[in-house]
Amino acid sequence: MRPNNRSLDSLRNVTLEAGASKYAEGSCLAKFGDTHVLCTASVDENVPRWMKGKGKGWVTGEYGMLPRSTHSRNNREAARGKQGGRTVEIQRLIGRSLRAAVDLSKLGERQIIVDCDVMQADGGTRTASITGAWVALYLACEKLVADGKIKENPVTDNMAAVSAGIVEGECRLDLEYVEDSAAQADANFVLTQTGGVIEVQASAEDTPFTADEMAELMRLAVKGIGELCEMQQQAVKST
Amino acid sequence: MRPNNRSLDSLRNVTLEAGASKYAEGSCLAKFGDTHVLCTASVDENVPRWMKGKGKGWVTGEYGMLPRSTHSRNNREAARGKQGGRTVEIQRLIGRSLRAAVDLSKLGERQIIVDCDVMQADGGTRTASITGAWVALYLACEKLVADGKIKENPVTDNMAAVSAGIVEGECRLDLEYVEDSAAQADANFVLTQTGGVIEVQASAEDTPFTADEMAELMRLAVKGIGELCEMQQQAVKST
Amino acid sequence: MRPNNRSLDSLRNVTLEAGASKYAEGSCLAKFGDTHVLCTASVDENVPRWMKGKGKGWVTGEYGMLPRSTHSRNNREAARGKQGGRTVEIQRLIGRSLRAAVDLSKLGERQIIVDCDVMQADGGTRTASITGAWVALYLACEKLVADGKIKENPVTDNMAAVSAGIVEGECRLDLEYVEDSAAQADANFVLTQTGGVIEVQASAEDTPFTADEMAELMRLAVKGIGELCEMQQQAVKST
Amino acid sequence: MRPNNRSLDSLRNVTLEAGASKYAEGSCLAKFGDTHVLCTASVDENVPRWMKGKGKGWVTGEYGMLPRSTHSRNNREAARGKQGGRTVEIQRLIGRSLRAAVDLSKLGERQIIVDCDVMQADGGTRTASITGAWVALYLACEKLVADGKIKENPVTDNMAAVSAGIVEGECRLDLEYVEDSAAQADANFVLTQTGGVIEVQASAEDTPFTADEMAELMRLAVKGIGELCEMQQQAVKST
Amino acid sequence: MRPNNRSLDSLRNVTLEAGASKYAEGSCLAKFGDTHVLCTASVDENVPRWMKGKGKGWVTGEYGMLPRSTHSRNNREAARGKQGGRTVEIQRLIGRSLRAAVDLSKLGERQIIVDCDVMQADGGTRTASITGAWVALYLACEKLVADGKIKENPVTDNMAAVSAGIVEGECRLDLEYVEDSAAQADANFVLTQTGGVIEVQASAEDTPFTADEMAELMRLAVKGIGELCEMQQQAVKST
Amino acid sequence: MRPNNRSLDSLRNVTLEAGASKYAEGSCLAKFGDTHVLCTASVDENVPRWMKGKGKGWVTGEYGMLPRSTHSRNNREAARGKQGGRTVEIQRLIGRSLRAAVDLSKLGERQIIVDCDVMQADGGTRTASITGAWVALYLACEKLVADGKIKENPVTDNMAAVSAGIVEGECRLDLEYVEDSAAQADANFVLTQTGGVIEVQASAEDTPFTADEMAELMRLAVKGIGELCEMQQQAVKST
Repeated sequence: MRPNNRSLDSLRNVTLEAGASKYAEGSCLAKFGDTHVLCTASVDENVPRWMKGKGKGWVTGEYGMLPRSTHSRNNREAARGKQGGRTVEIQRLIGRSLRAAVDLSKLGERQIIVDCDVMQADGGTRTASITGAWVALYLACEKLVADGKIKENPVTDNMAAVSAGIVEGECRLDLEYVEDSAAQADANFVLTQTGGVIEVQASAEDTPFTADEMAELMRLAVKGIGELCEMQQQAVKST
Repeated sequence: MRPNNRSLDSLRNVTLEAGASKYAEGSCLAKFGDTHVLCTASVDENVPRWMKGKGKGWVTGEYGMLPRSTHSRNNREAARGKQGGRTVEIQRLIGRSLRAAVDLSKLGERQIIVDCDVMQADGGTRTASITGAWVALYLACEKLVADGKIKENPVTDNMAAVSAGIVEGECRLDLEYVEDSAAQADANFVLTQTGGVIEVQASAEDTPFTADEMAELMRLAVKGIGELCEMQQQAVKST
Repeated sequence: MRPNNRSLDSLRNVTLEAGASKYAEGSCLAKFGDTHVLCTASVDENVPRWMKGKGKGWVTGEYGMLPRSTHSRNNREAARGKQGGRTVEIQRLIGRSLRAAVDLSKLGERQIIVDCDVMQADGGTRTASITGAWVALYLACEKLVADGKIKENPVTDNMAAVSAGIVEGECRLDLEYVEDSAAQADANFVLTQTGGVIEVQASAEDTPFTADEMAELMRLAVKGIGELCEMQQQAVKST
Repeated sequence: MRPNNRSLDSLRNVTLEAGASKYAEGSCLAKFGDTHVLCTASVDENVPRWMKGKGKGWVTGEYGMLPRSTHSRNNREAARGKQGGRTVEIQRLIGRSLRAAVDLSKLGERQIIVDCDVMQADGGTRTASITGAWVALYLACEKLVADGKIKENPVTDNMAAVSAGIVEGECRLDLEYVEDSAAQADANFVLTQTGGVIEVQASAEDTPFTADEMAELMRLAVKGIGELCEMQQQAVKST
Repeated sequence: MRPNNRSLDSLRNVTLEAGASKYAEGSCLAKFGDTHVLCTASVDENVPRWMKGKGKGWVTGEYGMLPRSTHSRNNREAARGKQGGRTVEIQRLIGRSLRAAVDLSKLGERQIIVDCDVMQADGGTRTASITGAWVALYLACEKLVADGKIKENPVTDNMAAVSAGIVEGECRLDLEYVEDSAAQADANFVLTQTGGVIEVQASAEDTPFTADEMAELMRLAVKGIGELCEMQQQAVKST
Repeated sequence: MRPNNRSLDSLRNVTLEAGASKYAEGSCLAKFGDTHVLCTASVDENVPRWMKGKGKGWVTGEYGMLPRSTHSRNNREAARGKQGGRTVEIQRLIGRSLRAAVDLSKLGERQIIVDCDVMQADGGTRTASITGAWVALYLACEKLVADGKIKENPVTDNMAAVSAGIVEGECRLDLEYVEDSAAQADANFVLTQTGGVIEVQASAEDTPFTADEMAELMRLAVKGIGELCEMQQQAVKST
């Protein structure tokens, strides 16, 4: 039995609270069960130096965890003087995923930085981050349209992310921490609402798994992401 | 007139939400108007190396701001690879202030780290941090007592912090951002409920101010801290 | 047409030269066309601190590129004072992949560090790294057996890595640089000889791709990895 | 009894040697007893980037201790790769204090950097630094006037700094190291010659102190700073 | 007896393989016995900022060792976050040596960076680096001439480097590792083909040595460098 | 003509003030004309970790320049977060030189760190550092003997350092800054009083120089170091 009697293909209780930050151009507090991530999209009227003069924009992501967002405290990355490998890997994933859903040429020469800061972590922080980041990004783009800076919203696809994994021999959707830490395999999917593939990352924990299991994990993800995309649309309409 | 018609000696709307974090041994979400700080106290059963074998404990503070907690985005300190001077200064102040209110010899050889993370900043983040940190620290110590690890709560004083400053020639309590950025002088006070002095830091902005003005700022702080200490006591009782 | 008239499911010209380093306990110079990676496995009789006393070993990977391994020179990471995000991501992948093919409990409390240093880069450096790293790791373990330090070789699976991607609408195996830089999608697979999944990482470049294309990329990878695993077995026998 | 039979409101033996550096535009070797600080003011014809085009200048301070300026050796900050929290805090204090005594709009778009390097430390290094820094800054400004680069000296106030603290229950002026390390409270004051407040920083060591004690510490500081300002005027005349 | 019965004034088996890198403008794989260094010269059409507008060029060197180029593994400098003192010292030596053999005014406002990366180390890595770097630099300059970017090759002297030392009381040329680690004195010479002095660095290991011994070490170096310069000329002709 | 009519083989006006620091176990303020270096020797009762248990001691040097010790200000290395290449190179030279004049087995398992901090720089800071460092080191060892911690002073040789160079075609001893910056060749010698060689470092600036010139530079150095060693002996007797 999964915790809280969840079925194998059920998401946790998800809420996407748009407009959670007073200052950011777009924001979303994404909660996947006890995993809470604050996503804020900040518009910067400059692009990175290497993109200057190309007539198009840039979207990037940053990721951080509060030191006590986890069961036991982790040292603060700012105090250690560098971001850990996991952080770097996740924020590169966030950035790549968002860019695949935006037409950068319609953004103008400006950058949108989406910060995903984990307030509380109970598994799946990267997928909650991407799902909330899409809402924050979409709203920031809407504001650019409303402010007359761009003609149309450059977000091309509705997309979201979810994890799936093999726990106790079962393929399960949206693992929480106790499942994640016992998983034989762990996968993260970033897909469009219509099932288009943006990113797939799957890892065996101790022993390899089969191509059939891989296919089942993907099937679960398609289902979950369909539901998440609907919630995202509700969220952006609510503001 | 102050924003929202506040009188010169009034605090902003303050709430102290104890238990805001699922995992931390003690926590408090401190809101001073639109300034929101999440304070978590983490018990570490080891003391820093230089304190080993002394038979007493240690309390320290760390401070951070989310990149978009402010009107415009600040670069992430973890990404820049170092904490800025202001951050270092504030977290040293938090640590010193908390230690002055604790009998370290009653804590045992363990450390309590209080993280103060600013979710949203509208002036006075360091005083909101210290005020909330006291609640988080107190609750973590209560938990140590409840868990039978120490006999009595080593917190010796109820203390809090507040700012006061000179704006448009007036001495005002608890400045918010628009006042802070226009202040001729800015002071931060950490006092006990009975007016005992733990820390005073006062700075002239452009031109020196008088000893009488300094005394008036302190008078305002004594009043405000009296009120904050009562709220802290309500907060720790509420859990 | 692919460069050099390669067919869609053909590997580049691959050689795996075991024993390429005079000092390392195991080594392999892996060449995938013009991509050349020197892989050396070093036995360290200590495990990382957090693994002490657990009675098992650890395997980790490090990755670097010579500054002029690429078409234009990249700044030296040692001079910049930090490893870039791409480097960190790749070396985490190498480590995870190798550990999935080793029974750490049979390694004893020691660590094997596999360094993958790119001499020349023409696309697919991470997959050449993993493929060569397996050979270096296997040989280092053989040496531990020969030296009487462990009873049997703890490598549990023969595994290798290869890339596949979508270029000009075609799914192609083992992309070289000119293909990689024009790809609509790019995927890296780490599989066992029998098709067991260790790692899958797939990214859309600009626009999402379909689940069918994902399946075709995987089919190509299974074929290529079968061939690579045979070459690895030849290589380890040759020493 | 205080060391050397000093009375409670007496400074240590203070000398301010103007022109102690051959190259700096302004300099002062400030000695407060056995605390020796070399202060050099360097004119930089550029302002920091964020101040460009504002038509005014900037004054900043830097602080360092020689590794063996203290009783036992401290590691060199340059070797550790970062400045410690105490250093950062002190140099921010030096900069703020100096800027409060200068009309930056009269300085032109240039920067003066005042380096305060502690040759020997016996308590009160930050107050000796600020007192000597004012002399160095004043002389560098005189040189700018003499060189025809500015019309009048932009230093608006004669100001100095001194410590006071509570030791063995007594309020004492200008603590030396043996007193400082035994103090119940420690305060640093930066005041103008006429008692105007620039900076006040007071900290309780273990237990809070009273508002009356705070007032007495300030009274001592006003007296001491009056004497220091006269010595500064002698020093700048002597060159 | 020296290893392999080498006579006191014999070089190890030396090969200089020009064109070892596919991409670099000039390259050389220098082997002095088991010491193997890959030297690549990269043309950068920008000079360092402090040289802009001076109408002349710059030549610099960088040096690195692969982690397992040595008997036991060294930590990767990129992972440690800084280059060690030995690395810094060697790359400064490489740069100074090369610049002394080039007329920078004939190079135009461009920079040549010569990377010397040690694949395998058996003593004398810095002298093999300089010897190979000269070849790489020369070839890169030839390419600039061939590409019509400069009129004539700005390399003014044929020069090379070799070590000599005192081992078991004997002065010996071109020490290998087992000799180096037992040497009473160790010297490195960078000389022109005609014996002109570019750099001399000699160090006593435990006890001082005599001026006569110094002279003998230099005599050995002159002989060895004469031979190396001839090999360099063969190497550049071979491409 | 040299500045101040110095003859080619004359030192600048040199003074070695032993005991210049109140706290250090040994110290010397070395002045070579306008080059002033404070050298302090600190005894640390621990050796570096890699030397533990070998029954012998260690001597090391550190070097720094005050930011405004030079004609124009240099950024503080502690603020930049790393020591520059020149600093690293010099402090390695200081350490090696001192160790060649000490019998480490007679020092016991302790470390002496000699800090050489340049107060004012007018050429030859590294040679003034080494010359003063020897005095500081000798005195610290004397103190160890006087304190009964070791039986005899482990310093085996009287040694000093001086520069020599080729300026306007002339070989000159002990270059000052205006000469140094115009030199065709620059050499630093660390020799014993009897002419034993500890370190020689010679560099051509633009064009190679001859072996005869090298011999003449060494002859000058032998003369200068003879004089410096006598001054060192006066200095250590004076305390």
